[in-house]
Amino acid sequence: MPKARANLETLYRIFTVPEEPDTTLGAIDKAITDDVAGFLQNHIVATERPLEEIEASFASSAIPEEPTYVSDYTEFVQDNLVAQSVHTAAPGFVGHMTSAFPYFMLPLSRLMTALNQNLVKVETSKAFTPMERQVLAMLHHLIYRCPDDFYPSWIHNSQAALGAFCSGGTIANITALWVARNRLFAPDGDFRGIAQEGLARSLKHHGIDGVAVLVSERGHYSLGKAADLLGLGRDQLVKVKTGQNNRIDLQALRQEVRRLQDQNIRPLALVGIAGTTETGNVDPLEAMADFAGELGCHFHVDAAWGGPTLFSDRHRSLLAGIERADSVTIDAHKQLYVPMGAGMVIFKDPTAVSAIEHHAAYILRHGSKDLGSHTLEGSRPGKALLVHAGLSIVGRKGYELLIDLGIERARIFAEMIRQHPDFELTSAPELNILTYRYCPSAIQQTLAAAGPQEQFRINAILDQVCQLLQKYQREAGKTFVSRTRLRMTGYGEEITVLRSVLANPLTTDEILMSVLADECEIARQPEIQALLEQI
Amino acid sequence: MPKARANLETLYRIFTVPEEPDTTLGAIDKAITDDVAGFLQNHIVATERPLEEIEASFASSAIPEEPTYVSDYTEFVQDNLVAQSVHTAAPGFVGHMTSAFPYFMLPLSRLMTALNQNLVKVETSKAFTPMERQVLAMLHHLIYRCPDDFYPSWIHNSQAALGAFCSGGTIANITALWVARNRLFAPDGDFRGIAQEGLARSLKHHGIDGVAVLVSERGHYSLGKAADLLGLGRDQLVKVKTGQNNRIDLQALRQEVRRLQDQNIRPLALVGIAGTTETGNVDPLEAMADFAGELGCHFHVDAAWGGPTLFSDRHRSLLAGIERADSVTIDAHKQLYVPMGAGMVIFKDPTAVSAIEHHAAYILRHGSKDLGSHTLEGSRPGKALLVHAGLSIVGRKGYELLIDLGIERARIFAEMIRQHPDFELTSAPELNILTYRYCPSAIQQTLAAAGPQEQFRINAILDQVCQLLQKYQREAGKTFVSRTRLRMTGYGEEITVLRSVLANPLTTDEILMSVLADECEIARQPEIQALLEQI
Repeated sequence: MPKARANLETLYRIFTVPEEPDTTLGAIDKAITDDVAGFLQNHIVATERPLEEIEASFASSAIPEEPTYVSDYTEFVQDNLVAQSVHTAAPGFVGHMTSAFPYFMLPLSRLMTALNQNLVKVETSKAFTPMERQVLAMLHHLIYRCPDDFYPSWIHNSQAALGAFCSGGTIANITALWVARNRLFAPDGDFRGIAQEGLARSLKHHGIDGVAVLVSERGHYSLGKAADLLGLGRDQLVKVKTGQNNRIDLQALRQEVRRLQDQNIRPLALVGIAGTTETGNVDPLEAMADFAGELGCHFHVDAAWGGPTLFSDRHRSLLAGIERADSVTIDAHKQLYVPMGAGMVIFKDPTAVSAIEHHAAYILRHGSKDLGSHTLEGSRPGKALLVHAGLSIVGRKGYELLIDLGIERARIFAEMIRQHPDFELTSAPELNILTYRYCPSAIQQTLAAAGPQEQFRINAILDQVCQLLQKYQREAGKTFVSRTRLRMTGYGEEITVLRSVLANPLTTDEILMSVLADECEIARQPEIQALLEQI
Repeated sequence: MPKARANLETLYRIFTVPEEPDTTLGAIDKAITDDVAGFLQNHIVATERPLEEIEASFASSAIPEEPTYVSDYTEFVQDNLVAQSVHTAAPGFVGHMTSAFPYFMLPLSRLMTALNQNLVKVETSKAFTPMERQVLAMLHHLIYRCPDDFYPSWIHNSQAALGAFCSGGTIANITALWVARNRLFAPDGDFRGIAQEGLARSLKHHGIDGVAVLVSERGHYSLGKAADLLGLGRDQLVKVKTGQNNRIDLQALRQEVRRLQDQNIRPLALVGIAGTTETGNVDPLEAMADFAGELGCHFHVDAAWGGPTLFSDRHRSLLAGIERADSVTIDAHKQLYVPMGAGMVIFKDPTAVSAIEHHAAYILRHGSKDLGSHTLEGSRPGKALLVHAGLSIVGRKGYELLIDLGIERARIFAEMIRQHPDFELTSAPELNILTYRYCPSAIQQTLAAAGPQEQFRINAILDQVCQLLQKYQREAGKTFVSRTRLRMTGYGEEITVLRSVLANPLTTDEILMSVLADECEIARQPEIQALLEQI
């Protein structure tokens, strides 16, 4: 790339002079402003290049010595990064938890970036602090529906917080379990609490050999990270088997707890899932709340995906019992339709976060309203604005429409798959996620008649078909579904399945038909046909 | 606010129709595009309103039932949020680690938001994955300067990572200590490692009673969070006293280590600071590296602030020894001039992150290049693009100019303070941060002649002066410095000081003179004069 000169004048220019609409970057900016969908459609190349080829454009570890002209850099980015990125907003991209988002999110994101507030403290965020606190209160209200006189005393209370805003569901889940752990091992007489004395002394003080977190085998992998990070160990993340509909098997849960207690290990938390990542199912939250109450342990609900179902009058009851959770994770960059990087954990008890409170001399002073005194992260951007905007502009009824639409679309897609001679629905949608696989009806019949060993052999071949099919579909770039491996009722061992998430309101029935049509066409490829012939 | 109607047509519109330039949001968007500095100057109200008043605009916990028109919402945001936010980019706002940023950051942020990639996995980020890996390699190269043939084998290696990108320095520091902890307690014979078995069993396996992290008393508060989160306990974050220039006292460090060893507590990590948050000083990194080597423990350098000093040929030597660190934290939203929410931890050994590796069935599969298999966070935005852009467009020499400029400006400001009859420089700038206090020369002389008790009394009054002065200056909104409390050589107990960070290239000498002039004017207020008369 041609080089500019590094001098103070150049430097001053790049900090002060905005892009002109006729430069390359200005033109891109204008194109995104005028028609973001068109921009993405025109600039992202559908057909996938091998990752190794793309890596060649990002191969140097040397930081360029001299400055580069913005236009030259922008052209590089347009050709090598934008063109080779993933069209996550495409209505035919129904494999991961991404979607198009409301148009106002883009200009408001720019406003947020331009203001460059740091939410760790009031001195660098002022009005953004009460705004974020309001967002947390709104989500608290959505989940817990506390009486109206509850909120005024807590929402802007410097001694409390109704939750914590963060970069995503993983940090939210970790924060919830961190609070649970620190509350279990709270200061007690001479014992100054786990935050101060650490885990080993805490176990000793309580005379126990460990603490465990229990979740179904559909639990998100962030819980494993949490168990590692918090010092519990992954052995103490107990993955309980699921029964009907990918929901936790309550009897198995009781057995696991007994097994733990026999080993002098105390249940720290039960984690219910409201929208499993892979299949979109909801655990029996009422029964889990009962059991957590019986055990006297923390009850966390990971509603990163399914939380916004609470907007829907029709479907809210699927999450019944969530209002009994001590903490709830909700991701804003999922079904609140906010751009990537926004999650929340909400605590029923506004004083719960005091278990992880921390201070410093230059900020987060005692009594301040600085949000950073009880967040896992430090410096953070003002992303809460985008949630605030979504809740205000879209409104409860707007989100209800989105939720209802997604669930309805998933049912329609499930019915398409059921009716199709070449596919098998492996998990019906409870919310808006379903799984299926390529398995022509003749093979379905063979499988039904076969013994366990033969079933195992056939399923292993179908797994390979599934894997190739997903890969080729992704590479072709017209439509996209994801894949995973699941142990599911009726299938013996783990099988590989295709996974579809129906959250983009721009996804139509026609597009879903084309998803299946694309897969049927790919299945006709010799490599896949050769596999199927082995059955 | 007037309400729109929630129906499918409205919904479809907000997902597809862009803002028009003549609407309120369109006009704001255009104003930011055309002249961001002017927009901030015109729309942020300088004079501070009490936080309690601002809270009244964010008091409701109810999510609006019906949709709101975007224009009405935007007007609300303009009047109640933008107007009452903090002008962090103002050249007279020299109290926290914020600055104006290069103009291209805004349109590239919009591009990043529009693409909405999720960096947790290749399937939702494609070219963004190698781009982020390249950024990590560039920073690795900046710190460690490994030979050119080192990088090709590691940069895009699925079994390794040269670091982890994250939302900020706190997550970076936590990640570094997480890796250190898991490497110390690696699998060993029957012992399956801390990630699996947890901290209590790990201590038992090693026959020790605890592990400690040692850092100077200037260490960032995120290290306390890390000690809590990782289960070590804050007792085991040993804050070693500082000697000359706010640097760790090496003799005291040795003593603390001996004390720990006597208690059967093993040093897990030494943390050196390259740019203390409060005073901008750099620990003796070479000596600390030597000592960490002697102890056989992890050496982490928190260079969240000072890392980019490595760009400067003139000042790089201040950080000598950083290339011997096992891990280094660098914040991109500080001296890489990227908007809020971007940090990195870099590991010398590209296989170090395998200590915290994790997988899932639907993503992060073994052998994949998914970045999420070794990050603390899960879903993450493509912020690495902005670092990539900064390094490419500004270049090494451009950043060098910025670093040199900031250090030079800090020296000039220090000299202004030294020469001024009403101020006392409490810590001279080593990098671009300094502290001072309002202390007229007559009082300086009184203090010099006074005994310890009288000094204590006078300093307590000066603390109050400092606190009020900083508050009134912030409220007036013309210029801003922060304040902190520090125990410093020559001052006995902790004193309150004003703190200035000189990183905004648009800050001129005239502005720095006005910072002091504003303070002198505020000091003439009766409340402050009454305090000073007590001396």
